[in-house]
Amino acid sequence: MGDRRVLILAEGRFTPLDAKTATCVIRYAPEEVVGVLDSRTAGRTTADVLGFGPPLPIVGTIEEGLALGPDTLLIGVAPRGGALPPAWRAVVAKALEAGLTVASGLHTFLGDDPELVAIAERSGARIVDLRRVPEDLPVASRKAALVDATVVLTVGTDCNVGKMTAAMELTLAARRMGHRAVFAPTGQTGLFVDGKGLVVDRVIADFVAGAAERIVLENAPGQDLVFVEGQGSLLHPGYSGVTLALLHGSMPDAQILVHQPTRTRTLNDEIEIMPLPAWIALHERMAGYLKPAPVVAIAINGHDLDEASAREWAERITRETGLPAVDPVKFGGEPLVEAVLTAMGAGKPAPVRAARGG
Amino acid sequence: MGDRRVLILAEGRFTPLDAKTATCVIRYAPEEVVGVLDSRTAGRTTADVLGFGPPLPIVGTIEEGLALGPDTLLIGVAPRGGALPPAWRAVVAKALEAGLTVASGLHTFLGDDPELVAIAERSGARIVDLRRVPEDLPVASRKAALVDATVVLTVGTDCNVGKMTAAMELTLAARRMGHRAVFAPTGQTGLFVDGKGLVVDRVIADFVAGAAERIVLENAPGQDLVFVEGQGSLLHPGYSGVTLALLHGSMPDAQILVHQPTRTRTLNDEIEIMPLPAWIALHERMAGYLKPAPVVAIAINGHDLDEASAREWAERITRETGLPAVDPVKFGGEPLVEAVLTAMGAGKPAPVRAARGG
Repeated sequence: MGDRRVLILAEGRFTPLDAKTATCVIRYAPEEVVGVLDSRTAGRTTADVLGFGPPLPIVGTIEEGLALGPDTLLIGVAPRGGALPPAWRAVVAKALEAGLTVASGLHTFLGDDPELVAIAERSGARIVDLRRVPEDLPVASRKAALVDATVVLTVGTDCNVGKMTAAMELTLAARRMGHRAVFAPTGQTGLFVDGKGLVVDRVIADFVAGAAERIVLENAPGQDLVFVEGQGSLLHPGYSGVTLALLHGSMPDAQILVHQPTRTRTLNDEIEIMPLPAWIALHERMAGYLKPAPVVAIAINGHDLDEASAREWAERITRETGLPAVDPVKFGGEPLVEAVLTAMGAGKPAPVRAARGG
Repeated sequence: MGDRRVLILAEGRFTPLDAKTATCVIRYAPEEVVGVLDSRTAGRTTADVLGFGPPLPIVGTIEEGLALGPDTLLIGVAPRGGALPPAWRAVVAKALEAGLTVASGLHTFLGDDPELVAIAERSGARIVDLRRVPEDLPVASRKAALVDATVVLTVGTDCNVGKMTAAMELTLAARRMGHRAVFAPTGQTGLFVDGKGLVVDRVIADFVAGAAERIVLENAPGQDLVFVEGQGSLLHPGYSGVTLALLHGSMPDAQILVHQPTRTRTLNDEIEIMPLPAWIALHERMAGYLKPAPVVAIAINGHDLDEASAREWAERITRETGLPAVDPVKFGGEPLVEAVLTAMGAGKPAPVRAARGG
């Protein structure tokens, strides 16, 4: 996190569920945000819409947005259909004309658009396509196992369950506890909010694990703890490959399992979510073939729970799994960090010489 | 396989291990090959170099190659370093000038090279970049489970162990047995040799399973059996994600495990290869969370074994696993197809409603 002054474009979509990037930036870097551009909620405040954070202004036009004095425009939602709608193009063009850095998480790269590039060149503005990935990524080869830092991967019982939030909360908690800790993002939101990283879901399949490996190697020096943002789920029919690639590429020393207790079926495919002990066994097994990585705690996504219910769920999950459980957004990630440190008491696990049967 | 007349460019690399594409095309479509271009082995025959197949000429220059009357130039090896060396560029240019279709499996697309495109446009030649993948691939959602055909995925105990060859031999054997069977390639070699398919290792990570799903949906209609070419291995530190994506995207009804008995450590990482029963359990478990897919037989890669040794290994493997085992290149894939049909006696497995613990 730095000293940017960010205007977030969330046109027509500024809701907690829809505008994941916008919401996360406001949660974790509110001091950097000058306002949100969304004509649908214009006039209200971000606190009013989101239910948390400072009451930042929501404006309806780019002109009002520029009046807030931003130096960066972040495109915080994807347009329906993928292509840049004409109205958004005009917003981006005006931001670039005004000299703002435009950071985009869109699949279509703004930096490949000759018209926008020409405007940026005239004004000296910068276009940052967050999803653009380096072309020299390696095929992973267990090098991430060699770093001195303790590497923790957040994994989940479904996609869109809070793996990025958990990794961020773990990082903040570890820092509060006096450790040198870094958040290693693997998605566009995390990449914008904090730290070095790259958007692994844009990487060509053969190099996803290599991308995770590079993320660990680049983030680890000088740190005690590296918290790698997980993606997808090992049992998601579409994303399981990315999840496994992250696990085998990042070579974590420990895993934190993220779970939303009230979600009983997966979002996309409505498959019944299996019990947590089976999830823990699955993740420890798939990691353990190449390097042991115990699941040391459960991070609860309790966005739809009050504090009392979140505590009840935590107790129930601890009884079920024998592991510490906490909603880190509500109560801080300290117990999760403690669980990592306890598990690492005997030192980092070493990679196996022979793949071991599960 | 069709009625092309193919000249294979394998410059400096025409050996069985190095020129996988060239070797496979000569093995499975020899009637389409007019010769090989490789100045290092020029003057010998392909049978002499490979130890199998018809004695096709190997020539040292593109001019000699054109004299063989090809209509297609297949780039059958990747240049060291990735970029197109000037000498190869001259060969491709001459082939295009002569009106040949140039089919390339290189990561760098010839169709993006303005100079080569201009030549092709002048002569009416066609450039086919085998690794170019469609941009509209879906995220997989278990749709492949719905096809009527029996879907078989070849999986392996390492990368580069013979999954494509096994799928091809299974297809040929099934056809000999009177079944409607199709080979569904997922790599460049298979794609050139036969059938509809796409090169999944070029697909952006989120869509690999979706690519596998589409391959099954496109190949299945009108077939009894679809043999999907597997990729990588579930325990390869770099490629495991692709392997799992293929498993969860193609939703096979059965798996054939490919193993080279003399390989005790993995090629790239020198991890000891675990015993076959553990491999079988791993694959059945990772498939079974979403849809049961028994491993029904072992395909032996016996390229370094004589017939007697291959038979001995088959017996030993059957004792170890309780499953039929055969080297399909030496003895035909019929026993493997039989194993699939026997396992499907009770009908295709259905996808699970709830993910099941392993």
